[in-house]
Amino acid sequence: MLLWPGDERARRLADDGTLLRAMVQVEAAWLAALVSNGIAPRAAADDLAGLVRDDDAPAVAADAEPSANPVVPLLHLLRQRLRGRNELASDWLHRGLTSQDVLDSALVLVAAEVLKRMTRELDAQAAALVRLADGHRGSVMAGRTLTQHAVPITFGLKAAQWLTGVLDARRRVADAAAALPAQLGGAAGTMAATCELARRSGAPDPARAALDVADATAAELGLRSAVPWHSSRAAVTRVGDALVTATDAWGRIARDVLVLARPEIGELAEPAGRGGSSTMPHKANPVLSVLVHRTALAAPAAAAQLHLAAAEAVDERPDGAWHVEWATLATLCRRTVVAAAQTTELLEGLRVDAERMAATARAARADLLAERRALAAVLERADDGPGAEPDDPAAYLGAADLLVDAVLERARAALAGRP
Amino acid sequence: MLLWPGDERARRLADDGTLLRAMVQVEAAWLAALVSNGIAPRAAADDLAGLVRDDDAPAVAADAEPSANPVVPLLHLLRQRLRGRNELASDWLHRGLTSQDVLDSALVLVAAEVLKRMTRELDAQAAALVRLADGHRGSVMAGRTLTQHAVPITFGLKAAQWLTGVLDARRRVADAAAALPAQLGGAAGTMAATCELARRSGAPDPARAALDVADATAAELGLRSAVPWHSSRAAVTRVGDALVTATDAWGRIARDVLVLARPEIGELAEPAGRGGSSTMPHKANPVLSVLVHRTALAAPAAAAQLHLAAAEAVDERPDGAWHVEWATLATLCRRTVVAAAQTTELLEGLRVDAERMAATARAARADLLAERRALAAVLERADDGPGAEPDDPAAYLGAADLLVDAVLERARAALAGRP
Amino acid sequence: MLLWPGDERARRLADDGTLLRAMVQVEAAWLAALVSNGIAPRAAADDLAGLVRDDDAPAVAADAEPSANPVVPLLHLLRQRLRGRNELASDWLHRGLTSQDVLDSALVLVAAEVLKRMTRELDAQAAALVRLADGHRGSVMAGRTLTQHAVPITFGLKAAQWLTGVLDARRRVADAAAALPAQLGGAAGTMAATCELARRSGAPDPARAALDVADATAAELGLRSAVPWHSSRAAVTRVGDALVTATDAWGRIARDVLVLARPEIGELAEPAGRGGSSTMPHKANPVLSVLVHRTALAAPAAAAQLHLAAAEAVDERPDGAWHVEWATLATLCRRTVVAAAQTTELLEGLRVDAERMAATARAARADLLAERRALAAVLERADDGPGAEPDDPAAYLGAADLLVDAVLERARAALAGRP
Amino acid sequence: MLLWPGDERARRLADDGTLLRAMVQVEAAWLAALVSNGIAPRAAADDLAGLVRDDDAPAVAADAEPSANPVVPLLHLLRQRLRGRNELASDWLHRGLTSQDVLDSALVLVAAEVLKRMTRELDAQAAALVRLADGHRGSVMAGRTLTQHAVPITFGLKAAQWLTGVLDARRRVADAAAALPAQLGGAAGTMAATCELARRSGAPDPARAALDVADATAAELGLRSAVPWHSSRAAVTRVGDALVTATDAWGRIARDVLVLARPEIGELAEPAGRGGSSTMPHKANPVLSVLVHRTALAAPAAAAQLHLAAAEAVDERPDGAWHVEWATLATLCRRTVVAAAQTTELLEGLRVDAERMAATARAARADLLAERRALAAVLERADDGPGAEPDDPAAYLGAADLLVDAVLERARAALAGRP
Repeated sequence: MLLWPGDERARRLADDGTLLRAMVQVEAAWLAALVSNGIAPRAAADDLAGLVRDDDAPAVAADAEPSANPVVPLLHLLRQRLRGRNELASDWLHRGLTSQDVLDSALVLVAAEVLKRMTRELDAQAAALVRLADGHRGSVMAGRTLTQHAVPITFGLKAAQWLTGVLDARRRVADAAAALPAQLGGAAGTMAATCELARRSGAPDPARAALDVADATAAELGLRSAVPWHSSRAAVTRVGDALVTATDAWGRIARDVLVLARPEIGELAEPAGRGGSSTMPHKANPVLSVLVHRTALAAPAAAAQLHLAAAEAVDERPDGAWHVEWATLATLCRRTVVAAAQTTELLEGLRVDAERMAATARAARADLLAERRALAAVLERADDGPGAEPDDPAAYLGAADLLVDAVLERARAALAGRP
Repeated sequence: MLLWPGDERARRLADDGTLLRAMVQVEAAWLAALVSNGIAPRAAADDLAGLVRDDDAPAVAADAEPSANPVVPLLHLLRQRLRGRNELASDWLHRGLTSQDVLDSALVLVAAEVLKRMTRELDAQAAALVRLADGHRGSVMAGRTLTQHAVPITFGLKAAQWLTGVLDARRRVADAAAALPAQLGGAAGTMAATCELARRSGAPDPARAALDVADATAAELGLRSAVPWHSSRAAVTRVGDALVTATDAWGRIARDVLVLARPEIGELAEPAGRGGSSTMPHKANPVLSVLVHRTALAAPAAAAQLHLAAAEAVDERPDGAWHVEWATLATLCRRTVVAAAQTTELLEGLRVDAERMAATARAARADLLAERRALAAVLERADDGPGAEPDDPAAYLGAADLLVDAVLERARAALAGRP
Repeated sequence: MLLWPGDERARRLADDGTLLRAMVQVEAAWLAALVSNGIAPRAAADDLAGLVRDDDAPAVAADAEPSANPVVPLLHLLRQRLRGRNELASDWLHRGLTSQDVLDSALVLVAAEVLKRMTRELDAQAAALVRLADGHRGSVMAGRTLTQHAVPITFGLKAAQWLTGVLDARRRVADAAAALPAQLGGAAGTMAATCELARRSGAPDPARAALDVADATAAELGLRSAVPWHSSRAAVTRVGDALVTATDAWGRIARDVLVLARPEIGELAEPAGRGGSSTMPHKANPVLSVLVHRTALAAPAAAAQLHLAAAEAVDERPDGAWHVEWATLATLCRRTVVAAAQTTELLEGLRVDAERMAATARAARADLLAERRALAAVLERADDGPGAEPDDPAAYLGAADLLVDAVLERARAALAGRP
Repeated sequence: MLLWPGDERARRLADDGTLLRAMVQVEAAWLAALVSNGIAPRAAADDLAGLVRDDDAPAVAADAEPSANPVVPLLHLLRQRLRGRNELASDWLHRGLTSQDVLDSALVLVAAEVLKRMTRELDAQAAALVRLADGHRGSVMAGRTLTQHAVPITFGLKAAQWLTGVLDARRRVADAAAALPAQLGGAAGTMAATCELARRSGAPDPARAALDVADATAAELGLRSAVPWHSSRAAVTRVGDALVTATDAWGRIARDVLVLARPEIGELAEPAGRGGSSTMPHKANPVLSVLVHRTALAAPAAAAQLHLAAAEAVDERPDGAWHVEWATLATLCRRTVVAAAQTTELLEGLRVDAERMAATARAARADLLAERRALAAVLERADDGPGAEPDDPAAYLGAADLLVDAVLERARAALAGRP
């Protein structure tokens, strides 16, 4: 993707070949479950391996318009290629499913992979932030509100704030990952075709047999078995909300880095070796932060698009709202994974100039301590107490240290898997 | 609000007077905690009762621009009115807090009230939907996909799908409600002023004392005590995500009603007595659904706005991103509560024409059973099995009944407070 | 509006009372046109003056839900109050109109007022920017790209860039204002009731007579007479697009001020006398820029909401999409007018520290001139030419002056009303 | 693009290879202008033809992250390949430009192509709608408001409404196309490097010479020469607004078709031969409308993203806001062109069942004429006038015919190029 620098970090995730394979994976799991539950004959078994290659994607895509989804041309291809190899599998392929089952479950498989990768990245980020928060609890810097100097903080406390965002995101990601459901409902969510097949296969309780097939398929795919959710899309929006909660946390970090890496401030710098310009040889632009910020500007609208699609999910399969979900989710997944990796790299290599922080804080001490002076004036106390150094910003850090401790404790518990 | 019909259902929720009172409530809880923790003198105690009235809101609002927030003029007003009554309270008011603490915590109080009301409404909706799903498990109707007849379903199953959305929303609302934090961090999140006051009051461990004040304040407000989150806004976005998950669920219901109440379909009708026109006396427009649909079209962008604000939360208090949160959240809260009540009324009074459903399904049986015929053809079985009635849509309902049971079981567990 | 500091700048614009009056104005113009075109009897004439007061708005709003719009209760009120005064006017009121005509035309009247105010503000901004661009064409400063020092620019050139945005917005506002149409189509856009009334009044060509009434009404309202656009909403989205083009231009200015007013940079400052904090007495926050930035973060989603409503405009009056337009447009109008005034004030009082700009540029000259050195190296020319001062940023300003001239020329033409 | 059925209709437009070629085209035009204006030596001339192939795109994309844009690796590739062929061209390549110039101008070239294609499609749609509106001015059907029967309309009038939307979009597209500017400003918009090169080449007025190079480049690219707009992005948002105005118009048509093609209504049908299902052989889903509706749901957020980027355009090149524009615009362009072609096909092949329309209108005549009866009652006239057929919906069509005429006249003028 030429116009999304860094896109390669997501490698094959959610690209056309991967999506095609995920769809085949759903078909294969379902076919296996039909066989293992005695609905399809044993000879219909086929793992569908090797039938579709990544370079089939363009042809499948090109044929997707007449049915408004890529599953129909994929089935055509699969059946064609099964002909010579396993006629019965060709007949039984997709029996009981509908396009939406295949596409939804395939997208959930992609989402599962994304959430897994994100957890790894968020853990790495949390670890880096634990180091920064702990290591810089003594690094005094100017607190800034509405762009202006406020009271002193430490860079450790700022890192702890960033860490709070990362931990919040991690929890949302874990919640979303815990509940990813397979979608297996047939043409309108009744599993009627599967029941019909079960009945014809002699199953004593066809409806129960159909649910068993769904359970087995979900288990094979590593997903939760669930009542069909073809028109109740909270599983999708929940993933989107978790992803954007993460890009929010990273965007907030990136915006801080972008401010603090300005040459006039110079308190932070990105990892070295990047940020060149096409004409200005001195440039070392904070490109990781720029690219993360870019993603953070785009992700909220993507998550909102998923919600809009959910809200417009009319009938047993909607008339456009479902169709807008696919690319929205896939693109959001790729972009989020890219931003995750960029943020990890940013945090692991972040260069902190604690001396510059201290120098700025010292130079601004009159402003940074104005609140303290005002307090003293109001309380009309001449005595500043023992050990007070009225013009040292480090003497007005409040509970910064305890707050850092609290966030670190939360991080350690989270990383250790404690609630 | 002339341009948001139904707005009155939210009554005073999140209106200017309520917001003003919530801010005063935060100041009062903090002042009480300063006193009870021995930082402020006992004589500074004041519950601030009666100091501010709803009709002070316009003046406070008008004076909010110079500081870019309404807390500064509110404090001016409070101090002015405390003068004659409790000089010491006037001095101690707001000591240790910053505007953001007051505004954030006040908005969280509003959100808590909203989530409480929503839980009640979602419970009522779930109860109504349990009745509809259970009562109409035998009401056969045409399933519709991409607007066209698909296979038969029951209205009970459709209601169960709606119920799934309501239960998903209920869980998200409960999760968001469980974690609502007070924001109490002082000028830049260090609690420096509170520590300073604690030190001057002779507290042996001023930082710990400051945290104790925060804990006491949060407890008084009924909120979770938390590390300051002035620039980590996941608590806010989580509320927004929960609200929009609910409006999604309602929008999806409304869209179905809007389709099925079309005169040519006529399978559902809104509760009687509404929907008049300014010129057409026969009209009975499905206005509840129209208004709920309206909200569902608007809510996703509002939730996205909160995410964008979170992503842009630079510095220790951002330069506009924080400011855009307030009205966005307050408006989203009101609108969601209105749509909640409208949806409850819609579902409790929904008129279901099961005969019309059955008639349409019968008339469309050739199409509704096309999948079944195709299955038979593919499987090359002449035998339709015992009891098959090939042209009765009711004979091709699959596992609809079991799926309804599964959703009802989930609903009963949820309503009984089981996980 | 407590949560939108600065809201008072919009005064009565688009508030409930004003909207109510605009609706009455539409009814009055239509009634007058019915009379003047000989369709209604002369005795039905009534200017509706004084019938509705601002404080009727809450009651009208409260009764708007059953019909899903405020016109129905407004008509009820008007007819009731006409009873004693002009029975015939009560009978003829609203004949031929539908709710949508009244609400759409009233909102267009509000939009017309907004666009007029915006033109005044944009002109004032352009004038201020002409002064800044012209006056600071010699004020050398660091150009900044991706937050880092790039090559030198002048503040005059930066102001000219801002001016370009303001002029672009001005053109879009003028285009939108030129084409504001009345909406007058009757129940489903056929003007059937008006034709029927014309026929009964003996008009020889009832359809033509109906169009004449519409023309007369539009003329009275100062709007363009147009084919009904009840379900073709480009007139609305065009207004939204113009407004957001303006908030974009202002947001971009605000973001620059927010960066350049940081204490470490200090090249710009907002007009004095604002920006106080609740606890930090030294604070002079750039609140105008903060509040403008806030609006610029919110406006794009509002304009998008109008587009979404336009795209969902099904049938002859949509089932929710129309309803979401009203508050969206009204709120966007108010917020844009507020931001307009704030930006004018910001630009008219902007304090430019040309010496600090120069000092920073001088200090950064090695970086700012790196491109120039690289050019020299590549071109392998020893001769730097006559007058070259290799380490003076002012010697590498390129065509900045000519570019400023070009923008000033455009501004002067625009302000003089030339194309 | 597997997940955007129909994407192939956009063919190569805005794909990576095309974007790469557009960038090379900008570099080539600039290099030619440097030579033709006597700044670069004649021997540096090179049309860059054949230097880059489509399959270079992945490598360029992969190397784009370190500089946060694809121009830097593209230049590396171009210079490398020029080495053996034209050393001087390699040296002079890109001199005076910055990455943003190349990327912005390349995207404008893509936008120009998109707007051209859209104009063709909108013209074809307008022609089809002229036929439908004119041909069906006698096809009476039920008008529908808030989903319910209102008063009668004709399908010709509905088509005229659709046509109004198409003509409105056409005007916005034409406006945007008329003003597409090249972006040529150098590192920070001063053209300093070009001036420097001009000075060294002996140009008497280097600044003027730089502007001449920009003029020549723009002319060669077929774009407007403009003051650099690197941080004033109204040219981009204007394109986005025009595109979404078009998708609004199409979405509105699609939504109508989706309603009227429901089997219970059956008044419209899509062109035959599409809409198959993976399991239901009878299905003929209205897939063109579904896919157009899908695009209409997504486009508003994309246009809003461009506005947000414009509003956040800080400094002389922003820190993420610029970067989010590229993929947003390119994707919006592709999707819009796809929807354009789908809508044309839909309208050219739309099947209108005028008999079914008439039958439904007849059956619903009591409701459709309720307004008329109410008018008569209010006006207390017994006489229904000559020729009145009180229960024929065709007798209550108002000015439908004249309104159709007005829209047709506008369409003919527009298609004939009259204003």
